[in-house]
Amino acid sequence: MNKEEMLEFLRKVKNDEISVEDALVQLKTAPFDDIGYAKVDFHRGIRQGANEVIYGQDKTPVQISGIVKSMHEHGISNILITRMSKEAADFVSKNHTLEYHEIPKAGIAYKNENIKRTGSVVIASGGTSDMAVCEEAALTAEILGSNVTRLYDVGVAGIHRLLAHSETIMKARVIVAVAGMEGALASVIGGLADCPVIAVPTSVGYGANFGGLSALLSMLNSCASGVSVVNIDNGFGAGYLANMINKMESAEE
Amino acid sequence: MNKEEMLEFLRKVKNDEISVEDALVQLKTAPFDDIGYAKVDFHRGIRQGANEVIYGQDKTPVQISGIVKSMHEHGISNILITRMSKEAADFVSKNHTLEYHEIPKAGIAYKNENIKRTGSVVIASGGTSDMAVCEEAALTAEILGSNVTRLYDVGVAGIHRLLAHSETIMKARVIVAVAGMEGALASVIGGLADCPVIAVPTSVGYGANFGGLSALLSMLNSCASGVSVVNIDNGFGAGYLANMINKMESAEE
Amino acid sequence: MNKEEMLEFLRKVKNDEISVEDALVQLKTAPFDDIGYAKVDFHRGIRQGANEVIYGQDKTPVQISGIVKSMHEHGISNILITRMSKEAADFVSKNHTLEYHEIPKAGIAYKNENIKRTGSVVIASGGTSDMAVCEEAALTAEILGSNVTRLYDVGVAGIHRLLAHSETIMKARVIVAVAGMEGALASVIGGLADCPVIAVPTSVGYGANFGGLSALLSMLNSCASGVSVVNIDNGFGAGYLANMINKMESAEE
Amino acid sequence: MNKEEMLEFLRKVKNDEISVEDALVQLKTAPFDDIGYAKVDFHRGIRQGANEVIYGQDKTPVQISGIVKSMHEHGISNILITRMSKEAADFVSKNHTLEYHEIPKAGIAYKNENIKRTGSVVIASGGTSDMAVCEEAALTAEILGSNVTRLYDVGVAGIHRLLAHSETIMKARVIVAVAGMEGALASVIGGLADCPVIAVPTSVGYGANFGGLSALLSMLNSCASGVSVVNIDNGFGAGYLANMINKMESAEE
Amino acid sequence: MNKEEMLEFLRKVKNDEISVEDALVQLKTAPFDDIGYAKVDFHRGIRQGANEVIYGQDKTPVQISGIVKSMHEHGISNILITRMSKEAADFVSKNHTLEYHEIPKAGIAYKNENIKRTGSVVIASGGTSDMAVCEEAALTAEILGSNVTRLYDVGVAGIHRLLAHSETIMKARVIVAVAGMEGALASVIGGLADCPVIAVPTSVGYGANFGGLSALLSMLNSCASGVSVVNIDNGFGAGYLANMINKMESAEE
Amino acid sequence: MNKEEMLEFLRKVKNDEISVEDALVQLKTAPFDDIGYAKVDFHRGIRQGANEVIYGQDKTPVQISGIVKSMHEHGISNILITRMSKEAADFVSKNHTLEYHEIPKAGIAYKNENIKRTGSVVIASGGTSDMAVCEEAALTAEILGSNVTRLYDVGVAGIHRLLAHSETIMKARVIVAVAGMEGALASVIGGLADCPVIAVPTSVGYGANFGGLSALLSMLNSCASGVSVVNIDNGFGAGYLANMINKMESAEE
Amino acid sequence: MNKEEMLEFLRKVKNDEISVEDALVQLKTAPFDDIGYAKVDFHRGIRQGANEVIYGQDKTPVQISGIVKSMHEHGISNILITRMSKEAADFVSKNHTLEYHEIPKAGIAYKNENIKRTGSVVIASGGTSDMAVCEEAALTAEILGSNVTRLYDVGVAGIHRLLAHSETIMKARVIVAVAGMEGALASVIGGLADCPVIAVPTSVGYGANFGGLSALLSMLNSCASGVSVVNIDNGFGAGYLANMINKMESAEE
Amino acid sequence: MNKEEMLEFLRKVKNDEISVEDALVQLKTAPFDDIGYAKVDFHRGIRQGANEVIYGQDKTPVQISGIVKSMHEHGISNILITRMSKEAADFVSKNHTLEYHEIPKAGIAYKNENIKRTGSVVIASGGTSDMAVCEEAALTAEILGSNVTRLYDVGVAGIHRLLAHSETIMKARVIVAVAGMEGALASVIGGLADCPVIAVPTSVGYGANFGGLSALLSMLNSCASGVSVVNIDNGFGAGYLANMINKMESAEE
Repeated sequence: MNKEEMLEFLRKVKNDEISVEDALVQLKTAPFDDIGYAKVDFHRGIRQGANEVIYGQDKTPVQISGIVKSMHEHGISNILITRMSKEAADFVSKNHTLEYHEIPKAGIAYKNENIKRTGSVVIASGGTSDMAVCEEAALTAEILGSNVTRLYDVGVAGIHRLLAHSETIMKARVIVAVAGMEGALASVIGGLADCPVIAVPTSVGYGANFGGLSALLSMLNSCASGVSVVNIDNGFGAGYLANMINKMESAEE
Repeated sequence: MNKEEMLEFLRKVKNDEISVEDALVQLKTAPFDDIGYAKVDFHRGIRQGANEVIYGQDKTPVQISGIVKSMHEHGISNILITRMSKEAADFVSKNHTLEYHEIPKAGIAYKNENIKRTGSVVIASGGTSDMAVCEEAALTAEILGSNVTRLYDVGVAGIHRLLAHSETIMKARVIVAVAGMEGALASVIGGLADCPVIAVPTSVGYGANFGGLSALLSMLNSCASGVSVVNIDNGFGAGYLANMINKMESAEE
Repeated sequence: MNKEEMLEFLRKVKNDEISVEDALVQLKTAPFDDIGYAKVDFHRGIRQGANEVIYGQDKTPVQISGIVKSMHEHGISNILITRMSKEAADFVSKNHTLEYHEIPKAGIAYKNENIKRTGSVVIASGGTSDMAVCEEAALTAEILGSNVTRLYDVGVAGIHRLLAHSETIMKARVIVAVAGMEGALASVIGGLADCPVIAVPTSVGYGANFGGLSALLSMLNSCASGVSVVNIDNGFGAGYLANMINKMESAEE
Repeated sequence: MNKEEMLEFLRKVKNDEISVEDALVQLKTAPFDDIGYAKVDFHRGIRQGANEVIYGQDKTPVQISGIVKSMHEHGISNILITRMSKEAADFVSKNHTLEYHEIPKAGIAYKNENIKRTGSVVIASGGTSDMAVCEEAALTAEILGSNVTRLYDVGVAGIHRLLAHSETIMKARVIVAVAGMEGALASVIGGLADCPVIAVPTSVGYGANFGGLSALLSMLNSCASGVSVVNIDNGFGAGYLANMINKMESAEE
Repeated sequence: MNKEEMLEFLRKVKNDEISVEDALVQLKTAPFDDIGYAKVDFHRGIRQGANEVIYGQDKTPVQISGIVKSMHEHGISNILITRMSKEAADFVSKNHTLEYHEIPKAGIAYKNENIKRTGSVVIASGGTSDMAVCEEAALTAEILGSNVTRLYDVGVAGIHRLLAHSETIMKARVIVAVAGMEGALASVIGGLADCPVIAVPTSVGYGANFGGLSALLSMLNSCASGVSVVNIDNGFGAGYLANMINKMESAEE
Repeated sequence: MNKEEMLEFLRKVKNDEISVEDALVQLKTAPFDDIGYAKVDFHRGIRQGANEVIYGQDKTPVQISGIVKSMHEHGISNILITRMSKEAADFVSKNHTLEYHEIPKAGIAYKNENIKRTGSVVIASGGTSDMAVCEEAALTAEILGSNVTRLYDVGVAGIHRLLAHSETIMKARVIVAVAGMEGALASVIGGLADCPVIAVPTSVGYGANFGGLSALLSMLNSCASGVSVVNIDNGFGAGYLANMINKMESAEE
Repeated sequence: MNKEEMLEFLRKVKNDEISVEDALVQLKTAPFDDIGYAKVDFHRGIRQGANEVIYGQDKTPVQISGIVKSMHEHGISNILITRMSKEAADFVSKNHTLEYHEIPKAGIAYKNENIKRTGSVVIASGGTSDMAVCEEAALTAEILGSNVTRLYDVGVAGIHRLLAHSETIMKARVIVAVAGMEGALASVIGGLADCPVIAVPTSVGYGANFGGLSALLSMLNSCASGVSVVNIDNGFGAGYLANMINKMESAEE
Repeated sequence: MNKEEMLEFLRKVKNDEISVEDALVQLKTAPFDDIGYAKVDFHRGIRQGANEVIYGQDKTPVQISGIVKSMHEHGISNILITRMSKEAADFVSKNHTLEYHEIPKAGIAYKNENIKRTGSVVIASGGTSDMAVCEEAALTAEILGSNVTRLYDVGVAGIHRLLAHSETIMKARVIVAVAGMEGALASVIGGLADCPVIAVPTSVGYGANFGGLSALLSMLNSCASGVSVVNIDNGFGAGYLANMINKMESAEE
């Protein structure tokens, strides 16, 4: 039940087309996404430029293609598909317009080339091995309407490389710090920057990194203020949140 | 070396008052906090209303009192002291104006009652046991200049209590979700809200919560978008970041 | 808004005492605990004989006493307080009728001696060290209206002790198996019994039990069917669920 | 030795056909499955409609086929085979009547189409990725004789989807809550429902879910009462226990 | 330097064929396996019937074949090769007499059919999935000269199956208890038996068994006396130790 | 029912003093410790010289004293009480003859000074910090009737100290290797000795020893054959098993 | 900006070829690797004989080949490539001079055969399974200019093998101790040697070694002084550090 | 048997004062600390200026005092006692000359004020909370004869503080990097310095630092070369190793 339907429903109550007893039952059993919470989702889509994101990892090419078809028929464009294999991309491409990015394994179906981008999201990482996660974050933020600056060569073991970009860091509205191994990048950037830092631990490394645990714990224990953490390898989550913060408007007085 | 000093230094080079060889040495050995990065810290204090936060846990009452004295003499007010024992508070109160909050074990020395607060930070928790962490977050955000709304009775095991406050949740600019045990609050709020959600796992619980690990992992794996996580029991970190996001201004076009 | 209020509200819509536009707003903002979900809690209390349980661990004697007072004034009896210290019990006893059990550290305020008990819950444990958890489970099930049989001497290292009680085990409607150390009791009982088995790992032991982890993992991996697990040391949860299962009525045809 | 044989044996002792000394030896060495405990297993099969379940994971197609053949020859039907590969299913199908379900990788050999189903088991999950585990639970409960309702679109990040089905949840006799990632579904359903909730953590997710650990710990720490937990991905165990609870009959007065 | 060589060396010192100074140097630099400790190894081989065991897991077929060749040329028979792939076995068989056992992936090169076996080692397990580990233990004990009794159908979830074999258990000189999942078998057997029990946790299972951790912790926390534990899946180690204990002779008065 | 009672019972069946039907019931419900398994326990006590061991950790002085009294009245001497506080020892001493050992916190009530000791158990440790665990093992083995040799200064960081005692090691019938920190002692001794080695990890150490985990894992992964492991700090378990192995008699031909 | 460029830049300031305002901007934005810290890297290369190391694991053959080409064109030889697959080596060999070592999967491009080696690095391991890690360490130290002695047959389970090489151990300037399983080698060597010992835990083993965790914890808890630890399987890191220590020169008076 | 005694022994063999058979026995049973390995320890003490270190944690004041007395009587001075309580220090001071340092809880008995110090060890930490560990490292290195520079205000969250000391860092011969929380200091220093870096994780922090685990894993995964790690809070181990490296002399040509 959307807003119009709700008004229509209430008019029927008013006009005796539906009894108050029946109305009570309908209200109690109506799916909640029809009277309130679904609007949230709907509004969210309109406001943020991406109506839905498809997590491709556990879905077959046929399933992904079906969801894309359904969304496209409902007039949705700019459909982001994360963790999508090359095979799935090839399959979806047969019937749909798809832009596929191999490094982050992400696809954008029915891309709207006219997305207006604003603000400034900086995505920083220490090594090339973290690039897949970085690009997932970058694509997500871009498709949602944020300007993205990539700083992909700034690991803490050569701190001067990072310091050389301190201007960029200080001008950012929000920074995504992506790092595996010891994950120290988040703390160092958190100490340099004035803005929120979203830390993304990655599973890059071996031995005592235990699948990203070392970077995760390191980032959670960051001694710098303004740093928060998302799941290991969760580039999408970081990009989504970065865009959300980047799009913040001034609080009303 | 601040900007003016740097210009003066370069003028001396120009005017042969200092040789290029000596200038090279000075540039290489100049403390970096004298030419740029220290300003960051200084600016940060001015801009955010709290010049410095004292982490009281591993400090003696004498040490805390000494730091407060030093800061006060430099004209700093609104000095937040976290994880401060009652004993330390009593000691510091002898020589300084201190407002002490017993639940979060936090003190504010030389409080400036005229802090102007803006925006809207919502701090939500499921049970009364999490209140110490919540209040640490709330006090931090308030002292830094944010309006704070407390929702302390909204655990997911009685989801209607949370839903009853959905208006508050939807109007928030940023939400801090504090929860121990299964930590599900962050996901549920993340699904309801349009704004960034900062999840704070707490060590409240027993048995298989392993000192907060259950809530921590739960929050990191949140299936809701827009959620990020800080360290277990880190109310201060959440409040600091919440204020930072709450104070965001609109991006320039 | 309860059922009557809701009908009244709908009548007002019908009679033009409230406009459909205003009705829309009211429906969207009505607290959910006023139209449905709060009733659930209320009904639950009536149906199960215990209106509320107080988790005493993180509460002061004053707080516990206050909650008991409030509940008592609302006509509630049989108030169970778990993880309550002796000190808290002494304090509460000053102003309220309280039956205190030292081993499980549980109190029952304003106990209703006329609780009718039905069915058959068996609570089994291997050693005397697990008795506090067992008694918490037993008291909970009893206060909620279940007959409880205690089997406290039946550890798997002397399997004949358990087998000697096989009649009791086979006649149970539901069994709570409490064990620390290797937690094997749940599997052995699960293999003997026809009814649901609720396994409670305890933190009893030392060294490689890691605070109950060994028994927890052991029980989760039980090769017997019909076994499920609650948190380490969670006697209350097991007793509550045991009573719930014990009270099951036959499904309608 | 069954009951009749035992009586016969005792009669021989009485009639001096066997000396008391020899009887002593026989009693001490008689296999216990001949005098009591084996009957349990036998009765269980008759009473519950499934004589035996074959865990297919570590068995070869030949082994599975052999066990099916043996059971079939003993007049057993409705043989459930879990974790059975497509290859094994193809092999078994050559010689036996087999209904194979690809998603849960489960087979039913010599299915009895006339199983009478009673009661109400609800199986709920948050995402499509958990479907294999859900279907294993559903098939198990159905083959054992329970009515099953599937709610597969009700994750907590969009709480309204779950609330839209609150009628179904409240009418259930027992609920299986299947969830990966943060596993919050169990707590939310536990708060809504009056009946036992069996929580099944799944290994769905990545990074800090550590193979299902996050959902497992989350569910064990559920702040809702009436919730217990089975092993990660253990759909069979949940379905088996759900059926057991669903089939509960009223306790005698 | 063996005993004879050592005596010869000392005679040379006596006869001035070697100066005391040179003798000092020789003694200090002589490989220790030449004067004492190597004898241990040598004696061990003679006494136990297997001179050397080859751990095949990280070795190529060529390497294994080479070691077998070297040992055979030194007159060694009954060469046990553990964790040997079928491919390696096929390769080694080309040039050597090899008896290969597929289930435990173990080979015996140049088997001595006349090994005299003594005593009584019982190897018990709960399920067929543990058979590979059991057979590795059994083969090891047998090749070293122990009589082995296999009890492979005695899991604790059907305790009567185990009890039916209590005579066998009580007559054993040493028992190897192999179990995955909850690993309770070791405790139950430990409670029944009078002899040392060697517990072998296996990695059989899924979910919260975490690669054998659940059985490992369970066995380490066994409340039965006389139980000790070897590494997960370490059938060889258990068989080796079982043989060692089985071969114990009476202590001298 | 002991052997005599069982014969008497069977005679009654024979003589019609008890009907076969009643006999059936009695046999099925007779406590199993009366017809078979209890004898095991009883025999064990007689054979091993210690009828019962009291684990004192979770028991009050009154409880311990009561158990000692009960055992003493049944004619039992040499009662070992482990993990007994000084306070408990003082209390028990008031009414009973007690020999108390402060380092291992172990007491022996009604000690039989005439225990005959046989064989050779060697207990080795690396540092003085492990002495409490060592002494618990030593006392246990001694009270059960084993000769014990203590080697308490033989840590692997000074390997010569261990090698100086190689004669002792090589002559042992069974060795208990007690070590915290890196737990390497078990492997080194396992490489030197021909006899079974029981490794006891201790919680001695700090930091990354994680309460004994480092020594535990180290010992489980020992590359030496003939080594098995008991729980962290479980001196009693090691001493009990060591005595059991030490008392082994030659297998019959 | 290197030293010469910096002097040139300062001269321009002096000579008014660049204004002080512009100079300020240039200094603040100049990449830090141009004014100081990069020199460190540059100097390091010259001093140590290997300008750069390529971590091959996450790079494609094309990428590796491209980096080698770039470095070669800048006059760099002795380029070490670690964790390089056979396929990558074959590809790189097409266009470049490459010496490939299969066991450690390491390549050296444009090897300088005239490297002068000094000092003494000893690399010790217990078993052949650790050889890949050992050789990675050895090659790294050799290519950087250290003499390397390999002791690959000295596991602690046969301590005499290690003691036979005590002369070599005592003469080393630095020792790399590589071990999987229980990792005891580091402690034993640490007790024998006078020089720094770098411990490398390996993932060799199974079961409770948990991917190298057992050896890692064991080495971190070493009771020998002078031992430090690098990441699991990190042969390169150990070889690099060993060379660094080996090349130490005497401190100035 | 020292060198002289060994020569004497061999002379006796030569002169027939001892038979070759008896000599064989003596050689086999001679304690190894008498012919070689004990000298190592002795030499070590002489060479390094500290004959012995007393780990005070698990020792009573009486025990510590006794060991000090024994060492002093053997002419040893500069006796370092680590982890020594104030109470123990007061007790030892009664009878011995003791310099006690409260922060690192370390004592030096019979301090030799004339220790000559050489080289340069830098000890860096991020916060004042790590000072106890730092001072333990510093005192250890100083008492062993190294010059120590303390850098205690250089955490990575304010990277400019560290960079201001880059000259000091670059001139160090060896650096000890002490850090809790995220432990990033080791990587940043490792990237700046040319010398070996010994990383010491500390248990400082809370929540997800899990007693130092976060810093430990972070340091083990350091992406900087030349970094190795010691146990959590092991200041002594770091100081000992730092002195050992600092004292390195140039390798012979």
